[in-house]
Amino acid sequence: MNEIIESLYKRKSMRVYEERTIPEEMKRIILEAAAQAPSAGCQQLYTILDITDKELKVALSETCDNQPFIAKAPMVLVFCADCKKWYDTYLEAGCTPRKPGAGDLMLAVTDAAIAAQNAVVAAESFGIGSCYIGDIMENCEEQRRLLKLPEYVFPAVMLVFGWPTEQQKHRPKPVRFEQKHIVHENTYRSMDGEELRNMFEGRCGQKSFEDWTAAFCGRKYNSDFSKEMTRSVEEYLKQFLRKDCDV
Amino acid sequence: MNEIIESLYKRKSMRVYEERTIPEEMKRIILEAAAQAPSAGCQQLYTILDITDKELKVALSETCDNQPFIAKAPMVLVFCADCKKWYDTYLEAGCTPRKPGAGDLMLAVTDAAIAAQNAVVAAESFGIGSCYIGDIMENCEEQRRLLKLPEYVFPAVMLVFGWPTEQQKHRPKPVRFEQKHIVHENTYRSMDGEELRNMFEGRCGQKSFEDWTAAFCGRKYNSDFSKEMTRSVEEYLKQFLRKDCDV
Repeated sequence: MNEIIESLYKRKSMRVYEERTIPEEMKRIILEAAAQAPSAGCQQLYTILDITDKELKVALSETCDNQPFIAKAPMVLVFCADCKKWYDTYLEAGCTPRKPGAGDLMLAVTDAAIAAQNAVVAAESFGIGSCYIGDIMENCEEQRRLLKLPEYVFPAVMLVFGWPTEQQKHRPKPVRFEQKHIVHENTYRSMDGEELRNMFEGRCGQKSFEDWTAAFCGRKYNSDFSKEMTRSVEEYLKQFLRKDCDV
Repeated sequence: MNEIIESLYKRKSMRVYEERTIPEEMKRIILEAAAQAPSAGCQQLYTILDITDKELKVALSETCDNQPFIAKAPMVLVFCADCKKWYDTYLEAGCTPRKPGAGDLMLAVTDAAIAAQNAVVAAESFGIGSCYIGDIMENCEEQRRLLKLPEYVFPAVMLVFGWPTEQQKHRPKPVRFEQKHIVHENTYRSMDGEELRNMFEGRCGQKSFEDWTAAFCGRKYNSDFSKEMTRSVEEYLKQFLRKDCDV
């Protein structure tokens, strides 16, 4: 176990921050760590929006499922899957590129998430806490307006950063599933009821499997924000599908 | 600059490996680093396929744009965005979950990529090289058959690992774009022709911007494998769209 592995194992989400800025030089190093991440064909199919405007942070804290801690974070980054800038480059060079498609989008989304995780790991090495906000994919129309997102740009990942309070530092890290349920050898193995119950044993605490799962399903999966996420992502998808399709 | 940042900055893709296995304990630690990555609601919306079968590696090296080095890698992992296992869990617990949608898929794809990057960083700390293979998204029908992928499971990211040869270790790392072209403040800024040309200045080597870009466009963006990726991803997408849609 080396220092790097230890840091990856210990890192947990931090949502409450001290009132303390992140020095510009640290920010630059974190952003460079993102840029140095692996990227398909070294294309860096993303654009990182560095949200410095206070009012914009407040607006995002509202459009991202009303989470006020976003507005208080000293550093907020939106990693956009960007299929526009290479497309524009091809046009500028006089090529006849095809329109960006669903494959390009997925490649750009993974590029963006991979870069984002490098930023998380870099920040952690400075003691800076971070938290992913999946809700950035919701409310397509409002995010497009707020962030001035053009065609072929999709806000895949949002990250907020800050110096964690003592309370946050000592919060226990949520336990992960056992490896045998996450890693399958060679081919995908659909898990039966017994294995699924076994997988969730460590999760349910004092509750029964049924009660815990029903509560989680209601609070998360069947929630309004989750349905909104699918509506919003479908809206972004339309421009990438080869035929117009009223999904 | 600490050891972690240095490791993130130095890491580059490695595609030629020594004939040397990766000890099981190291593999376990790398897989655990993936599992310890941040994950939406701690759901770990992925399943990692650990490809140990030699013939399966050979098959994947062919279906992933004919890259023989994949078959020679001592460790091959496919990170599948998995919207099935939680859906099955809800059903097992007697809930009435909605069908997985495009939002769930995107959340699972980012979860998978984030976990994959932790595996890359962990492997690098042991001196183990890695390479992402985006082509795993191509050839939907064949990958589904080879990996026995059921409904609601999408192979988002493939990673191959191995001990790099000396030649690979000394290969220069491809230079990234300058931060000013990758990071925009607050809102997205469409770059004009002049800025795009400026952005690509370091990329084109002895070639003109037009020649370099046309060659790249032809070899990558307008290539058959790139079109196949979009066709294949659209095929995977169909199951997640709310209305049947012949994209």
